[in-house]
Amino acid sequence: ARTGIPEAVLAETKSVAALSRILSETLERGERMLFTRMTAAQFAALNAAAPGALDYDPVSRTAILGSAPANGLESPICIVSAGTSDAPVALEAARTLAFSGWQAPVIQDVGVAGLWRLMEKIAVIRSHSVIIAVAGMEGALFSVLGGLVPGLVIAVPTSVGYGVSRDGHVALHSALASCAPGIVAVNIDNGFGAACAAMKALRIQG
Amino acid sequence: ARTGIPEAVLAETKSVAALSRILSETLERGERMLFTRMTAAQFAALNAAAPGALDYDPVSRTAILGSAPANGLESPICIVSAGTSDAPVALEAARTLAFSGWQAPVIQDVGVAGLWRLMEKIAVIRSHSVIIAVAGMEGALFSVLGGLVPGLVIAVPTSVGYGVSRDGHVALHSALASCAPGIVAVNIDNGFGAACAAMKALRIQG
Amino acid sequence: ARTGIPEAVLAETKSVAALSRILSETLERGERMLFTRMTAAQFAALNAAAPGALDYDPVSRTAILGSAPANGLESPICIVSAGTSDAPVALEAARTLAFSGWQAPVIQDVGVAGLWRLMEKIAVIRSHSVIIAVAGMEGALFSVLGGLVPGLVIAVPTSVGYGVSRDGHVALHSALASCAPGIVAVNIDNGFGAACAAMKALRIQG
Amino acid sequence: ARTGIPEAVLAETKSVAALSRILSETLERGERMLFTRMTAAQFAALNAAAPGALDYDPVSRTAILGSAPANGLESPICIVSAGTSDAPVALEAARTLAFSGWQAPVIQDVGVAGLWRLMEKIAVIRSHSVIIAVAGMEGALFSVLGGLVPGLVIAVPTSVGYGVSRDGHVALHSALASCAPGIVAVNIDNGFGAACAAMKALRIQG
Amino acid sequence: ARTGIPEAVLAETKSVAALSRILSETLERGERMLFTRMTAAQFAALNAAAPGALDYDPVSRTAILGSAPANGLESPICIVSAGTSDAPVALEAARTLAFSGWQAPVIQDVGVAGLWRLMEKIAVIRSHSVIIAVAGMEGALFSVLGGLVPGLVIAVPTSVGYGVSRDGHVALHSALASCAPGIVAVNIDNGFGAACAAMKALRIQG
Amino acid sequence: ARTGIPEAVLAETKSVAALSRILSETLERGERMLFTRMTAAQFAALNAAAPGALDYDPVSRTAILGSAPANGLESPICIVSAGTSDAPVALEAARTLAFSGWQAPVIQDVGVAGLWRLMEKIAVIRSHSVIIAVAGMEGALFSVLGGLVPGLVIAVPTSVGYGVSRDGHVALHSALASCAPGIVAVNIDNGFGAACAAMKALRIQG
Amino acid sequence: ARTGIPEAVLAETKSVAALSRILSETLERGERMLFTRMTAAQFAALNAAAPGALDYDPVSRTAILGSAPANGLESPICIVSAGTSDAPVALEAARTLAFSGWQAPVIQDVGVAGLWRLMEKIAVIRSHSVIIAVAGMEGALFSVLGGLVPGLVIAVPTSVGYGVSRDGHVALHSALASCAPGIVAVNIDNGFGAACAAMKALRIQG
Amino acid sequence: ARTGIPEAVLAETKSVAALSRILSETLERGERMLFTRMTAAQFAALNAAAPGALDYDPVSRTAILGSAPANGLESPICIVSAGTSDAPVALEAARTLAFSGWQAPVIQDVGVAGLWRLMEKIAVIRSHSVIIAVAGMEGALFSVLGGLVPGLVIAVPTSVGYGVSRDGHVALHSALASCAPGIVAVNIDNGFGAACAAMKALRIQG
Ligand SMILES: Nc1ncnc2c1ncn2[C@@H]1O[C@H](COP(=O)(O)O)[C@@H](O)[C@H]1O
Ligand SMILES: Nc1ncnc2c1ncn2[C@@H]1O[C@H](COP(=O)(O)O)[C@@H](O)[C@H]1O
Ligand SMILES: Nc1ncnc2c1ncn2[C@@H]1O[C@H](COP(=O)(O)O)[C@@H](O)[C@H]1O
Ligand SMILES: Nc1ncnc2c1ncn2[C@@H]1O[C@H](COP(=O)(O)O)[C@@H](O)[C@H]1O
Ligand SMILES: [Mg+2]
Ligand SMILES: [Mg+2]
Ligand SMILES: [Mg+2]
Ligand SMILES: [Mg+2]
Ligand SMILES: [Mg+2]
Ligand SMILES: [Mg+2]
Ligand SMILES: [Mg+2]
Ligand SMILES: [Mg+2]
Repeated sequence: ARTGIPEAVLAETKSVAALSRILSETLERGERMLFTRMTAAQFAALNAAAPGALDYDPVSRTAILGSAPANGLESPICIVSAGTSDAPVALEAARTLAFSGWQAPVIQDVGVAGLWRLMEKIAVIRSHSVIIAVAGMEGALFSVLGGLVPGLVIAVPTSVGYGVSRDGHVALHSALASCAPGIVAVNIDNGFGAACAAMKALRIQG
Repeated sequence: ARTGIPEAVLAETKSVAALSRILSETLERGERMLFTRMTAAQFAALNAAAPGALDYDPVSRTAILGSAPANGLESPICIVSAGTSDAPVALEAARTLAFSGWQAPVIQDVGVAGLWRLMEKIAVIRSHSVIIAVAGMEGALFSVLGGLVPGLVIAVPTSVGYGVSRDGHVALHSALASCAPGIVAVNIDNGFGAACAAMKALRIQG
Repeated sequence: ARTGIPEAVLAETKSVAALSRILSETLERGERMLFTRMTAAQFAALNAAAPGALDYDPVSRTAILGSAPANGLESPICIVSAGTSDAPVALEAARTLAFSGWQAPVIQDVGVAGLWRLMEKIAVIRSHSVIIAVAGMEGALFSVLGGLVPGLVIAVPTSVGYGVSRDGHVALHSALASCAPGIVAVNIDNGFGAACAAMKALRIQG
Repeated sequence: ARTGIPEAVLAETKSVAALSRILSETLERGERMLFTRMTAAQFAALNAAAPGALDYDPVSRTAILGSAPANGLESPICIVSAGTSDAPVALEAARTLAFSGWQAPVIQDVGVAGLWRLMEKIAVIRSHSVIIAVAGMEGALFSVLGGLVPGLVIAVPTSVGYGVSRDGHVALHSALASCAPGIVAVNIDNGFGAACAAMKALRIQG
Repeated sequence: ARTGIPEAVLAETKSVAALSRILSETLERGERMLFTRMTAAQFAALNAAAPGALDYDPVSRTAILGSAPANGLESPICIVSAGTSDAPVALEAARTLAFSGWQAPVIQDVGVAGLWRLMEKIAVIRSHSVIIAVAGMEGALFSVLGGLVPGLVIAVPTSVGYGVSRDGHVALHSALASCAPGIVAVNIDNGFGAACAAMKALRIQG
Repeated sequence: ARTGIPEAVLAETKSVAALSRILSETLERGERMLFTRMTAAQFAALNAAAPGALDYDPVSRTAILGSAPANGLESPICIVSAGTSDAPVALEAARTLAFSGWQAPVIQDVGVAGLWRLMEKIAVIRSHSVIIAVAGMEGALFSVLGGLVPGLVIAVPTSVGYGVSRDGHVALHSALASCAPGIVAVNIDNGFGAACAAMKALRIQG
Repeated sequence: ARTGIPEAVLAETKSVAALSRILSETLERGERMLFTRMTAAQFAALNAAAPGALDYDPVSRTAILGSAPANGLESPICIVSAGTSDAPVALEAARTLAFSGWQAPVIQDVGVAGLWRLMEKIAVIRSHSVIIAVAGMEGALFSVLGGLVPGLVIAVPTSVGYGVSRDGHVALHSALASCAPGIVAVNIDNGFGAACAAMKALRIQG
Repeated sequence: ARTGIPEAVLAETKSVAALSRILSETLERGERMLFTRMTAAQFAALNAAAPGALDYDPVSRTAILGSAPANGLESPICIVSAGTSDAPVALEAARTLAFSGWQAPVIQDVGVAGLWRLMEKIAVIRSHSVIIAVAGMEGALFSVLGGLVPGLVIAVPTSVGYGVSRDGHVALHSALASCAPGIVAVNIDNGFGAACAAMKALRIQG
């Protein structure tokens, strides 16, 4: 899109009627569209009306209307996540990047409780300019990455956890309070927003 | 410094004894240093011990040890603040950038309650790649900027306000919940962190 | 009703038995009644008992007993909402006004992330004395409207959002902390209350 | 001012230097100005620089630059407060109205713990179109007034109280959750904002 | 029971297996028992195992094992509730009292938004020594009663409400912050506890 | 007073001017008065104006105008506190009772961390009908007493503590969530309110 | 495992696909595994794929892959819980210990509302070095135990409760704010973590 | 003391009169005593009354009455802190241990923002059985240590920080939500409690 940010529709809070209208209008205009936070039930209803129009991924809960071809460039962005439970958010970021042509690597399951797993991947991570870091629970991954990599760390706290960490506020606050300077954060579970910010950063001419 | 992030000391929570030790050790090593959140009383005590060593700015509450010469380049970063009350945080960001050689313009008093004042400056703001946006109260400035400028918006919520907005959480949450995609946030009052993130972004090769 | 405020029943937290009793008593007295926050299941049960008695709107979740004829006057009140997801609350306000005879225009989808969409409608909005503004997420719409229109802005925060903005507190606090003076707020999702306040304001003789 | 809302400066969070600059610039332009939340220390410093320029009221913590003559009209707005401790906020509203020419009556000490005191004044209160209701602690005054008067009730919660009611959130939430429909609220301690909203409402042509 | 407080079992958080065990053990000992917060599903399972043993009331969600004969005395306790939605909690208190032999009157729907409804009943209410007051939303009923009746007011906040009053914290805090001295409170939705406290108070010899 | 509840003035949030006016008006009417939460500075100013008129106790921060003679009866109320730090609140309750003629024993320093200290006093405590229990920190005292004594336990949480227990919310919530049925609570630090409730309970004829 | 802490997988937040992959990989490696917080539905799906592989306990929601033979030693750890509703968490701790060979006694239903029940068991409890204390509601059990036993008390707050104690924060804060020195806490409902800490403590050589 | 836990008095919330009484009574009994959280002003007053009796340390704010000789044993406990600002809490733990004879090493300034500094000390830390970890801000140190050392990690969150991390709740929640199993936590700033727990753990015979 004009500002380099993909057109996207947040599906979850919309009625199927409203989503259908958006879908058919976009089809008519011959445009592409990214839908985020789409439930399986919403997809089923939309797919019944317009079979095959949407490429739906149930883990990231994203649907893509129209093709999303890779740009063929080496991705300066990588995605790092703390645990398997964080996959939906990490993949929402990946799908948002893919919608704009970037094939960013997703490095999963490198939470700090097993620091050696992170260390095995640290050279690969350091080779990227922007790191989208995805973590729930206590979010210690953000500070550890922030102290180890020179690139811009964009923290995405997830709502994975229970007890005090239910809903992701602990991970969010850990990102914001981090002693490692230069970490920035987006809303809890907002993989889409992190990907948008990462692509905005790519356009900067230092 | 090595990672492109300035060495900095958060002064506020340290004793004068601890700060003196840091100051003299840094002097001995012949290095430069940035101190943030330094109280007037802390500065007075340090200045008595090492007269003239520190360049202290009472508004931003920063002190600089050693010279901080401008790099002579046009700054791709600008700082935008909503009100005069946000000056301490806006200037903390400016001083952090200056410590690394960047003379970033500071555009103050363009809060959205008077949208026309922001509109008069919008062309200048849009000419920068990274915008450090500083706002307290309800933080509406973040969303408005996010919808108007193509650059990366780094939101710095401030603790300016009373009633529900005391302590800056409303502004912080506004930044995180913004409908304008791609806004990132740092901790409340953390002008230093925003400047560090901005400089990290400058090094990205998109 | 006597004080110019419509008689209304908050349905959601009542048993079907209690609602049936209210419905039949009101029918007996030959009076009109507005039901708010009525679930589809509640309506189905009531409609089975008294088929056709209630005019139910599933989006706003309101049911009207008895006729609600328009008063034929130009509405000095308009309703403005930030996104499609805010429709239930915006329409609750509209139905409450309609119950008292006002046909207020509903201007949807003018959130500040796309400021130009709001600007296209601003002249129409400014031509009204009272603006019921409905927004979730970060609620920046309230401040922007407050700075642009001379009329009374009644903010209705909605519980639309996720992460930090789940449940509507960010939007509520943005309305209360707004730098644009003279904005007033009602409870989260309370379109009914906003409409009541707007009608109270109409009776003022300045 | 242009939109009928007085120009005002929130003093508390500004430096004396910033306030002095605003004061002298306003004096130069020959304009009037209202300052709110000005501390005694701030006033002392400003008064030393420009003796007699400001009319300062220590209870409401407001300062007025320039004359504020009454408009001679019967005030359709009245101010009602629950206790003597709420005086600063009630008087901030009164001074804001006075700055625009309205001499609104202030009915103090009619909290609901002594319902008869309120009942003695209820006829007078009912004779006004807009009621600015000021209360801290549990804020029950808002609901009681909302059920008794036909006018528009603008609730101003105050930060008076201790324990659970410290900081005014209980009173604020009571106003928002009130069962009496049509009550609107402004921020905690925001007498200024309530007065602005009241004056906006006066201009409505129902 | 020994301390004058009924033996009671909080059902909601227990498995059916655990409840069955308690039920059969109590039957064996030939004792009476009160179960609170029992879901319809829990009752159905228990009733299938021991048909007719439990007297279940679906509104208050209480089940009584064994007879609960009235003591034939005039009840010095009355129960007052603000709205129909508060019935479950008001009736939990009534059933707890009935289990101990007291037939306390339940005066419903006298919330302060319609102060006259409360005033019609105030003489009856004043004739009781202990008033169990049940209210959700903003809980203004507590303060109004506290200022009007000489008896001991035991406030039971309910979780009825939405937006800021969801979950009952506003009503609870209103009870605690009340300006009417001598009001005491129990946990949100705790009609059982209020009845226990009321019966403890009955045994006092002043 | 008429309802058996002492007339009292909450001093803390009132100006010296307002307190002086109340004091002289009460003196003129020849009445008695209890002032609570009076700071040492407020007392000093009032005492300078009316030397000796007030009997001030700096620990409980209460001042009594006029005589407060004991009624000579055995007190059915006793006051129990967990630690020495809770003394101000325990003594506020004692002074409020004394103002109405009751000489209630104050049993201090029996927190549950040293359960044996409580056990040494339990027989004395059990001999009273109403127990005002005062505790900060985790408030475990409330549940332990509630399980051991047949009388009515009125819990007064105090704001004594640090970390999670700063401000008294943990102790308050412990009282409300207690598994021991029949405990009632008043606001944090509200020794005055507990004493008022205790005296209301004394008048009950079970 | 290497650090003496059992390998465990938190099941709840993982997809069945992810759990299946972990299960088959572990089976292939011939290793043992503990799954915590596994729902009945997750177990059903896994058991259909690998019938009998998992030993599932529906109360504690744990599944064990591979044998878990007792070590035959007297357990220095015991588990104490306040109520039957706390059984899931108490048993999660017991199963975690059993997975490592310890058969720790579980002493249930000794909450402080019936202090005598606790006292009957106190000698047994005191004979253990580490006490895992499990309690919801107000969590008074932690302080009482902390004052009575010389061993290390590890508090596990549970999310059992309603009103203010919903979600377990009251019990957690009671553990942390306890006046009985030396109590430590783990996250709400984290029986697994408490068992891990207890086993870490067993290896200490004082 | 009898239970192996030092006798200690929390000074901060006590009056000087109360502290003096405790001091002289303890002197009379010829016993030792530890005072925690004693302000400089409290110490000055006590020292004036009993010169030299107390050994006061202004950083940890502890005072020791009587001698505290080292037991000459190698300490199995070590104290690790994230930053210089955490010194008061780390030293409160050290002084509490010293009062009981343990000379525990204090390893400061090893926060995870500079992971290499922690790594330089990790062998020393691993050689201890119990690690008291002290950290404010985001508390990432707890998880990193928990993943690296086999000993029991007792987390002490500190109230060092600003913005979202003001008051220590982020660090506390990070400790509780840590993915590294077996970490236990005490209250914010409670170095005393951590030392007590550590000494309790030393007495365990695994
Ligand atoms: N998952 C997401 N999180 C946050 N914002 C989103 C998400 N998906 C789409 N958006 C943005 O939300 C706005 C869509 O709002 P709507 O008009 O309700 O579809 C657009 O500005 C999108 O760029
Ligand atoms: N310490 C106290 N806590 C709570 N309420 C109090 C206290 N002292 C006095 N009051 C009550 O607060 C009201 C005083 O309000 P005011 O008109 O501001 O003096 C009266 O209803 C008093 O009974
Ligand atoms: N119930 C539980 N609560 C907290 N942590 C757990 C629990 N069960 C397993 N874990 C730990 O959480 C991590 C599991 O992470 P994952 O890779 O998501 O399975 C491991 O470090 C486990 O030791
Ligand atoms: N810094 C501290 N934090 C928590 N508890 C403490 C502290 N210092 C002393 N204590 C404990 O608090 C209790 C002191 O209570 P008190 O009777 O008020 O002195 C004793 O049980 C002490 O062991
Ligand atoms: Mg994580
Ligand atoms: Mg702002
Ligand atoms: Mg919005
Ligand atoms: Mg009030
Ligand atoms: Mg109510
Ligand atoms: Mg206590
Ligand atoms: Mg319990
Ligand atoms: Mg730290």
